[in-house]
Amino acid sequence: MKKHNFSAGPCILPQEVLQKASEAVLNFNNDNLSLLEISHRSKPFVNVMENARSLAIELLGLEGKGYKALFLQGGASMQFLMCAYNLLDKKAAYLNTGTWSDKAIKEAKLLGEVVEVGSSKDQGFTYIPKGYEIPSDVNYFHCTSNNTIFGTQMKSFPETDVPMICDMSSDIFSRQLDFSKFDLIYAGAQKNMGPAGTTLIVIKEDVLGKVNRAIPSMLDYKVHLSKDSMFNTPAVFPIYVSMLTLEWLKNLGGIPAIEKINEQKAALLYTEIDRNPLFKGFVATEDRSNMNATFALTNESLKETFESMLTEAGINGLNGHRSVGGYRASMYNALPLESVQVLVNVMQSLEKKAY
Amino acid sequence: MKKHNFSAGPCILPQEVLQKASEAVLNFNNDNLSLLEISHRSKPFVNVMENARSLAIELLGLEGKGYKALFLQGGASMQFLMCAYNLLDKKAAYLNTGTWSDKAIKEAKLLGEVVEVGSSKDQGFTYIPKGYEIPSDVNYFHCTSNNTIFGTQMKSFPETDVPMICDMSSDIFSRQLDFSKFDLIYAGAQKNMGPAGTTLIVIKEDVLGKVNRAIPSMLDYKVHLSKDSMFNTPAVFPIYVSMLTLEWLKNLGGIPAIEKINEQKAALLYTEIDRNPLFKGFVATEDRSNMNATFALTNESLKETFESMLTEAGINGLNGHRSVGGYRASMYNALPLESVQVLVNVMQSLEKKAY
Repeated sequence: MKKHNFSAGPCILPQEVLQKASEAVLNFNNDNLSLLEISHRSKPFVNVMENARSLAIELLGLEGKGYKALFLQGGASMQFLMCAYNLLDKKAAYLNTGTWSDKAIKEAKLLGEVVEVGSSKDQGFTYIPKGYEIPSDVNYFHCTSNNTIFGTQMKSFPETDVPMICDMSSDIFSRQLDFSKFDLIYAGAQKNMGPAGTTLIVIKEDVLGKVNRAIPSMLDYKVHLSKDSMFNTPAVFPIYVSMLTLEWLKNLGGIPAIEKINEQKAALLYTEIDRNPLFKGFVATEDRSNMNATFALTNESLKETFESMLTEAGINGLNGHRSVGGYRASMYNALPLESVQVLVNVMQSLEKKAY
Repeated sequence: MKKHNFSAGPCILPQEVLQKASEAVLNFNNDNLSLLEISHRSKPFVNVMENARSLAIELLGLEGKGYKALFLQGGASMQFLMCAYNLLDKKAAYLNTGTWSDKAIKEAKLLGEVVEVGSSKDQGFTYIPKGYEIPSDVNYFHCTSNNTIFGTQMKSFPETDVPMICDMSSDIFSRQLDFSKFDLIYAGAQKNMGPAGTTLIVIKEDVLGKVNRAIPSMLDYKVHLSKDSMFNTPAVFPIYVSMLTLEWLKNLGGIPAIEKINEQKAALLYTEIDRNPLFKGFVATEDRSNMNATFALTNESLKETFESMLTEAGINGLNGHRSVGGYRASMYNALPLESVQVLVNVMQSLEKKAY
């Protein structure tokens, strides 16, 4: 039986994507060669790379708007460093909404001054700061759109004249936004886009070339752009699986179609968390993430019973992050509504058992 | 029909490894979940990482000698930068034996003074410089053990008191060496170890911590070591396939066993290149690589005939690098002797046809 996989990332991918990926490991493109053993400069793989790059731009609605996509290695953690290396000349503004913002700030501080324009650290990152001001003399404003660990999500983004950078690792391709508000978007693949090992970077080219420092080749967006994301051997398999996932999303109807499903899933689960007296949510209601719902039992003595019921129902990956505890239901694009229904059913069965 | 795959990298992997990798994409560890959709912090994947790290140390004969292994993203190109970031305080010595050394030197120069102790650039990198001297006041000596593009290989390494760093991307695990001579070894996986997307780094821990600069987290070997190569989400699939390939090598008898086969393959091909009047090798005989044999036709008018015979025989990936031309037969660990025999047969058939 296939499990209901609520894992926070790496996480569930569409079954048809896994099927195609598995086949490509044995025989790719009907060439009697594995995808893993062909040159990355061969025509079939160059096509994969170009297709993945253009699908990302297309799905985000950024065609013809001066943006280009890269698939690089190193995860969002490497982007914490790269975005500062390429764009932080003197001073940058950061919004601190959790562990990932915190880490991004730490790396940026090595390269310039960081103004923390807002932070929810005082209340354990359980809300999104609002009403903050972004100074006009900063090189950019950086934020994290969704916080996997705490389960908060930015529902709106500030209006500002400075370039905007956004770490969208855990909610890219999940909801409609005006992506052209951002000058640089990055996202580790392992949530809504593919397996671990590749990172999507979407750059408005005219934002580059404004710092004076010498940038090492592998950290330089311009170098990667000039080589069409092939400056060195790319992560072939993770990029191929990302391409398949983006194709799956396009065939489904793109972001507008998946957004509807994601809203249904989130509504179903949050309604139950709010209704069921055995559960409570962790974060401010208006800032709840549609990707990662964090919650806890109101009565810890039911823990063992609840968890054996989850296992019984084939539910996987519901443990909260070690720094938060409780439960976290990650409802990324590939998670079917049906899986959320199974979880809600277990929550309701627990209630019946308890009273 | 499975092809004879002489691709320079990404390149041929053992068929049994591809089979297991393909299965794991659908169902890993009999858990009814894909390897791509489980948490990298889950026990099954932590086991994969630990197994891959310890197999690397074991196969290199470095157990109990103060070494640790990491599997990081970014390829050897990122290591050009990282090794300098972590170890280059003032001055380092580099041996320039080709494109990859050249690139490593370029990145190191951003961080300190580089002394090029030897170079074969004057003759198009067709030989390995000898008799060079390594100054005693450098932080380290850096070399590239095998040059994929030109087809040369270092058959011996200098005796020196300074730390030795070696880029072994294209010949690691292919021949017996006293690996404890080196303080830092790195290798992109996509030749003898696995698919593109992960890089093995083997470090003697006591060589670290001697530079004063602030090192960004993702570039800091100490950070990665302190987190057992899991500072951030690792490239799950490429590391799993690398682990499978290292297991395959261990079961085969390790480096001593594969070295014998690699020597047979190289002897078979080089003997034919030297014997057959229609072919000539590109590089100095004593510096020929056992991994990448570069050669050309002595009579260019036979090009079309030769290449259609290669296709006919199911031979793939024999084109020389675009900067060198001619042919390059890459004979990595997973390439069977039989494939080299098929290539030699084609070379002999061409000779019969031509005379």
